[in-house]
Amino acid sequence: MSDKKYALIIIDMQNDFVLPGSPACVAGAYTTIPCIKRLLGFFRTNRFPVFHVIREYRADGSDIEFTRLHGFLNNKQYVVPGTKGCDIVDGLSPVEGEYRIIKNRFSGFINTELDFMLRRIGATHLVICGTQYPNCVRATIFDAISYGYPVINITDATSAQTSQIADANIIDLKNIGVDCISLDEFLNLF
Amino acid sequence: MSDKKYALIIIDMQNDFVLPGSPACVAGAYTTIPCIKRLLGFFRTNRFPVFHVIREYRADGSDIEFTRLHGFLNNKQYVVPGTKGCDIVDGLSPVEGEYRIIKNRFSGFINTELDFMLRRIGATHLVICGTQYPNCVRATIFDAISYGYPVINITDATSAQTSQIADANIIDLKNIGVDCISLDEFLNLF
Repeated sequence: MSDKKYALIIIDMQNDFVLPGSPACVAGAYTTIPCIKRLLGFFRTNRFPVFHVIREYRADGSDIEFTRLHGFLNNKQYVVPGTKGCDIVDGLSPVEGEYRIIKNRFSGFINTELDFMLRRIGATHLVICGTQYPNCVRATIFDAISYGYPVINITDATSAQTSQIADANIIDLKNIGVDCISLDEFLNLF
Repeated sequence: MSDKKYALIIIDMQNDFVLPGSPACVAGAYTTIPCIKRLLGFFRTNRFPVFHVIREYRADGSDIEFTRLHGFLNNKQYVVPGTKGCDIVDGLSPVEGEYRIIKNRFSGFINTELDFMLRRIGATHLVICGTQYPNCVRATIFDAISYGYPVINITDATSAQTSQIADANIIDLKNIGVDCISLDEFLNLF
């Protein structure tokens, strides 16, 4: 597998999306932390590149999707820079040499430096996990395929509000050629 | 509703994706033709703008997604410019004044002039239909929301390989604020 260069992309594992009771909690996200931690450990041990792709929204709502604006301003704010809720969850914090990419749309490729940086480091294959399946994870994976990156999605390191939603998304992802496998299956490749 | 300017986006209704037995046939697409035709008639009658967003792949495979390359070169080619299969299906052909946008990725916004043109004509709301739900339709809708366009998806004018796949995608689309309604419900807005 020496001709492949894997990069890990962990999406939106921030307190406001992950912690139970948080303002924009994705029900399945909290229980994926140990699995993502193992995956991250593997990348660190092998000195493979790691990208933490996260959301930020300005407190005045000026950069949020319009479909979320009303709720954001009236009921609850989330992932506002400088708040605790915006931080990556304990256990998955970036360490020196890992990249932090801020997006404020679904896809990590929209108006970010992600593609430039992946090209610069010569990444050939992307390993993608995080939350949540139907939105940011899927949009990022579709764009990754569009830009020419083979994608491995680690299913037990990726979450949704329900297992039905996760399963339906996995079907669609497999149908466009994404390799959706468990962490153990991934680690067995090496 | 006078402050709203609707544009219709019809996706990938080409012979190779739609006709039964065609090389890349989407099972549900053929039966949506009458519904899309009615929708198109409404836009023409009202002189609202229409965009026919279609796929093209060069015959040597140089621009196709890598996940589809092997099948394209070895088993079947489809939507190759100049072939009958690449044409929009009978009954939905563009007329003068309608726009034809060629994409070769899932989203109609990737490396196309679609957003520039929508801004130029002052479109405020997009009505999106065509084939197929999990891929080009959904990727285009997610990007439309990302770029700030409210989206109405006409469910009976949009298709997938199975109704289960269509239904699962509609759930995800509604969850990000897309208005998924039938043609009759849409026409009743006016």
